[in-house]
Amino acid sequence: MVFLNTQFIKKDQACISVMDRGFLFGDGVYEVIPVYQSKIFRLNAHLKRLQKSLDSIKIINPYTFNEWSYILTKLVNFSSLSNQSLYLQITRGCDTQRQHNFAKLTPTIYIESNPLTPKSKSILEQGFNAISREDIRWGRCDIKATSLLANVLYVEQARQQGVEEVILFRGKKITEGASSNVFMLKDDTLFTHPAGGNILSGITRDLVISSAKACQLSVQEVAFSLADIRRCEGLWISSSTREIMPITLLDGATINQGKINQHWHCVYDYYQQLKYD
Amino acid sequence: MVFLNTQFIKKDQACISVMDRGFLFGDGVYEVIPVYQSKIFRLNAHLKRLQKSLDSIKIINPYTFNEWSYILTKLVNFSSLSNQSLYLQITRGCDTQRQHNFAKLTPTIYIESNPLTPKSKSILEQGFNAISREDIRWGRCDIKATSLLANVLYVEQARQQGVEEVILFRGKKITEGASSNVFMLKDDTLFTHPAGGNILSGITRDLVISSAKACQLSVQEVAFSLADIRRCEGLWISSSTREIMPITLLDGATINQGKINQHWHCVYDYYQQLKYD
Repeated sequence: MVFLNTQFIKKDQACISVMDRGFLFGDGVYEVIPVYQSKIFRLNAHLKRLQKSLDSIKIINPYTFNEWSYILTKLVNFSSLSNQSLYLQITRGCDTQRQHNFAKLTPTIYIESNPLTPKSKSILEQGFNAISREDIRWGRCDIKATSLLANVLYVEQARQQGVEEVILFRGKKITEGASSNVFMLKDDTLFTHPAGGNILSGITRDLVISSAKACQLSVQEVAFSLADIRRCEGLWISSSTREIMPITLLDGATINQGKINQHWHCVYDYYQQLKYD
Repeated sequence: MVFLNTQFIKKDQACISVMDRGFLFGDGVYEVIPVYQSKIFRLNAHLKRLQKSLDSIKIINPYTFNEWSYILTKLVNFSSLSNQSLYLQITRGCDTQRQHNFAKLTPTIYIESNPLTPKSKSILEQGFNAISREDIRWGRCDIKATSLLANVLYVEQARQQGVEEVILFRGKKITEGASSNVFMLKDDTLFTHPAGGNILSGITRDLVISSAKACQLSVQEVAFSLADIRRCEGLWISSSTREIMPITLLDGATINQGKINQHWHCVYDYYQQLKYD
């Protein structure tokens, strides 16, 4: 079952008009929310970010916190799986004609839930590969928008190259991954690009920061470069589905001689605890 | 009637799955093609650009030139209007799940036709207003992609400010309008930003260049700045639906003392002839 515009229906019956501005303009925003042990993870933080995205593109939030909670919980309960990943998309709605400017429309709401199977610690600690590319995305990456063609092209490049992720740089500074935030560990300090228009400030990113602090790491929201990465002690990417994933090979060169820094274990373990708080 | 995936159907029956990557990711491209006196204008040039957009995002063109021509002509003939504007969108297709990377999918094709009523010369020569904003779009504006959220936000700003268009600058250079190309006239020379990743090289842009040359203007594909505009003799925007529109007020300041340069008349008249070639 999926949720589309006030109704729970079968996914193969979930159709939208060609006049939906999500289809015509990528004029929408989304969230991906994990569910652990049948409990929606950090719903408050996700709905707060959703509100921020909606405000940024001037779509009025169609539901209150309690209404969202009710709908999402109901969708979660349709499945017998205890770990799920909720995908929630809101577009500006269906217009009567294709026009860039906003008419007063009823937003389209689509929600689906999929099985969530994070990689195990033993898989993660084997390390993953990535490539770096110039960040050519727009200047409002802080909006979790569905105009995702740049990201889609990066992820397809990763697939073709047989790597997990594309890590992006703007000028000399690493911004984030095509679908993750990026962290660098050096001298017991965890660095990550500051929030702002160049990155999507992920919920998982915040939790990695909290976890790192709990592990006595200093955290600096300061951008770093590819040159810094060459001398770092750890490179991690984070997202709600990947959690905290060590990158041990970037553009064919090993990071920290391919070894997982011990701090990763502490941060990873702490993050796992947060999931079941 | 509209065309959706091999069929001509009524517009209110034209539905796509929520799994269409156009809806989920803005993962598609489009064309807007004018029809004058029931004849499709510069079909060859439009289909060539469509091919370039498709190639850029690795969607295989589902039809040959003759097949496109057949479908578009049939759609044009459903209407009794002699002037129409064809909107044609191709997305990567419907996936079985939301995943950024490309599975092998059948592209979704949507085409509709709307009445085309270009503004008359007497309206155009009254001049139009515009505002300038920083260009925060992505680095591949040469792809006519449906990930258009930035453009949509600009056009809405224009509507709110009661102006015709938002003219964009990157660094100090004017790139283009939110949905038009931009030209500056100075010393019998027409300047416009060179083709490349920062602009969509419009079909109308090419025709304005040809028309200007026919009017003995020198044409330089060289970018210009807001400071240059302050001293120019004419500022024009072009698109297939706007044709060649003089901007006489930018950010509240008059351009060329609000007067339409005589060269505009020649270029406009020449362009009108091209429409019925």
